Amino acid sequence: MAGGDVLVVGTGLIGTSIGLAATAAGRRVWLSDTDGERIRLAASLGAGRPLPDPAGISAAPEVSLVVVAVPPAAIAAACIEALAAHPHATVTHVGSVQSQPALEVEAQTDTSRFVGSHPIAGREVSGPAAADPALFVDRPWAICAVAGSGQDAVDEVGRLVADCRARAVFLDPGEHDRLLARLSHAPQLVASALAAALVDLDPQAVALAGTGLRDTTRVADSDPSMWGQIAQANADALAVALRAVAEPLVALAESLERRPEAGGEAATGLVGRGRLGRALLPGKHGRRPASYATVHCAVPDEPGALARLFTDIAAQRVNVEDFRVEHAPGQPVGVIEIAVSPADRARLLEGLHQRGWTATPGADEAL
Amino acid sequence: MAGGDVLVVGTGLIGTSIGLAATAAGRRVWLSDTDGERIRLAASLGAGRPLPDPAGISAAPEVSLVVVAVPPAAIAAACIEALAAHPHATVTHVGSVQSQPALEVEAQTDTSRFVGSHPIAGREVSGPAAADPALFVDRPWAICAVAGSGQDAVDEVGRLVADCRARAVFLDPGEHDRLLARLSHAPQLVASALAAALVDLDPQAVALAGTGLRDTTRVADSDPSMWGQIAQANADALAVALRAVAEPLVALAESLERRPEAGGEAATGLVGRGRLGRALLPGKHGRRPASYATVHCAVPDEPGALARLFTDIAAQRVNVEDFRVEHAPGQPVGVIEIAVSPADRARLLEGLHQRGWTATPGADEAL
Repeated sequence: MAGGDVLVVGTGLIGTSIGLAATAAGRRVWLSDTDGERIRLAASLGAGRPLPDPAGISAAPEVSLVVVAVPPAAIAAACIEALAAHPHATVTHVGSVQSQPALEVEAQTDTSRFVGSHPIAGREVSGPAAADPALFVDRPWAICAVAGSGQDAVDEVGRLVADCRARAVFLDPGEHDRLLARLSHAPQLVASALAAALVDLDPQAVALAGTGLRDTTRVADSDPSMWGQIAQANADALAVALRAVAEPLVALAESLERRPEAGGEAATGLVGRGRLGRALLPGKHGRRPASYATVHCAVPDEPGALARLFTDIAAQRVNVEDFRVEHAPGQPVGVIEIAVSPADRARLLEGLHQRGWTATPGADEAL
Repeated sequence: MAGGDVLVVGTGLIGTSIGLAATAAGRRVWLSDTDGERIRLAASLGAGRPLPDPAGISAAPEVSLVVVAVPPAAIAAACIEALAAHPHATVTHVGSVQSQPALEVEAQTDTSRFVGSHPIAGREVSGPAAADPALFVDRPWAICAVAGSGQDAVDEVGRLVADCRARAVFLDPGEHDRLLARLSHAPQLVASALAAALVDLDPQAVALAGTGLRDTTRVADSDPSMWGQIAQANADALAVALRAVAEPLVALAESLERRPEAGGEAATGLVGRGRLGRALLPGKHGRRPASYATVHCAVPDEPGALARLFTDIAAQRVNVEDFRVEHAPGQPVGVIEIAVSPADRARLLEGLHQRGWTATPGADEAL
């Protein structure tokens, strides 16, 4: 049975994606946003219907849940306003930081109907056009109750998480913020610092960069203002997490300056420790990293080439575990890396060669 | 007309790939390596034939070029040995650091037949099994002559670069090392420091990491010992490059600790500057980044699904500019992001919907 009506406040990437997923789960969704253009786009995508006064929230029909999906700095005020405007509804938000908005809400009003939450999904793009009802499928969604949160309110948020087909993970707000600082906020700023250091260089010289730097800085395309707000809201935990990454790098620089031999040893240690850390990251399907065998295949840059390749792979009855394009700057022919079960590699290579592809074995790797 | 014989000393990823490419270009290639297993594998892949005494280099037939492709710390000694053993050959190496081996070679012998070089291609894997004759195609390959290098020797290395279908870029050794410290060596160690900081965390908690952290740390799977040698050999330039990334991060941590508002503003500035830096990175085919439109499509994890998808894309006569898998932890259905020309997106979406795919527009992005 579908739950009660939902009001989504803020129709950016996350709010619109929630509207799409809740609508698909059979719930009636109302939309509110101060930006008329954005709410029209969200509604046209099927994320819900605009409130009669779409820029406000008080003229709303009765809803059982308000989801505040506004920029970080506006979250607490929007939650307080929603708690007052909807005296029977549960109010949650979906911000990347939990403690600071919780403290602000607690300071101003009763929190029995308030529960913070955070879908741990997202992209380096924003806006309703990037919305996707499958954005949350099987991804973790933190539910961060405060001391005063009632069980009914926690359950109401749990129903939304289920409707979005996400996995609920219950975390204390402070624990959430310390963890996200390490897993998301610091990595974002480190990637930005790496990319920012390129600005000083001759643009011609930057063209010599390989594919590694592109991957390492991919998230650096994110929105500066949003990240400024996240950094401010999670200042303490973020400072600790930034020091955990940057201080070993400064120490390595000092060691290299004092004595190159010692610096080389320190670098070996850091890269070795990095491999251990990387092995902790979840692999495909949330499993522990599994070993796959890879095959590299040259693919001409023309319509239909990828279709032929994957048709020829399927003809070998080989399941593709992963694939990626090697973004070789200046390369007219793309190289696709295909990861398969080690038992399947020889058969795949033979089949591809028979069908005229240039394919070579890659190294085995942990995905 | 094919050039003279080539001797490749060291049959790892780069040496074996050079052997494959030079063989394909019609040259006779000899292989030398102290590891018998490795040289057998390289020879069986078609990279060349082992020397009569494959662990040495002095019993070699006469060659016009010796390519030293050994670990960084062993490069200078191997070049000096090769110059003595092959008194008519040009000797080059393919290390990621140029100044230090050049200084060591200059200190011991005449350098008229010596030219350093560096193919700017490579992967976070190693060993002959990962070798690929197309590894260098259209990628930059730095040629770093020293003061004493003769023009004949520079030309000889240029022929190898052409045989590997790479783009020759002429750089002074010191300039090369400062640039590579910024574009490759520091990014590697920063990615390792990010991954290393995860080791302290609860492994269960690390499972909450999103896709961004995996991309950002991908290169952290590299070989610790090789990177220790690179760091030692390029100590001064690397220290400068590490400080350029790490010091702004420490300053940001200090700012966040002193006053969160100021820290938030500093973070906004850093992320904004990062976007400028990232825009300098080369796009596909070495062009300046171009704007593409993206489409997200859900794909079941079963043999043949990708083939069906790309067949259906080809039926729309749409050229796929790029694609990537969203590695959603715990997701049974993969989401493929397909980048196409903005003019093609509406047609692609319509065609995919007609054929029963769940596809949504993504945000436009610079590739």
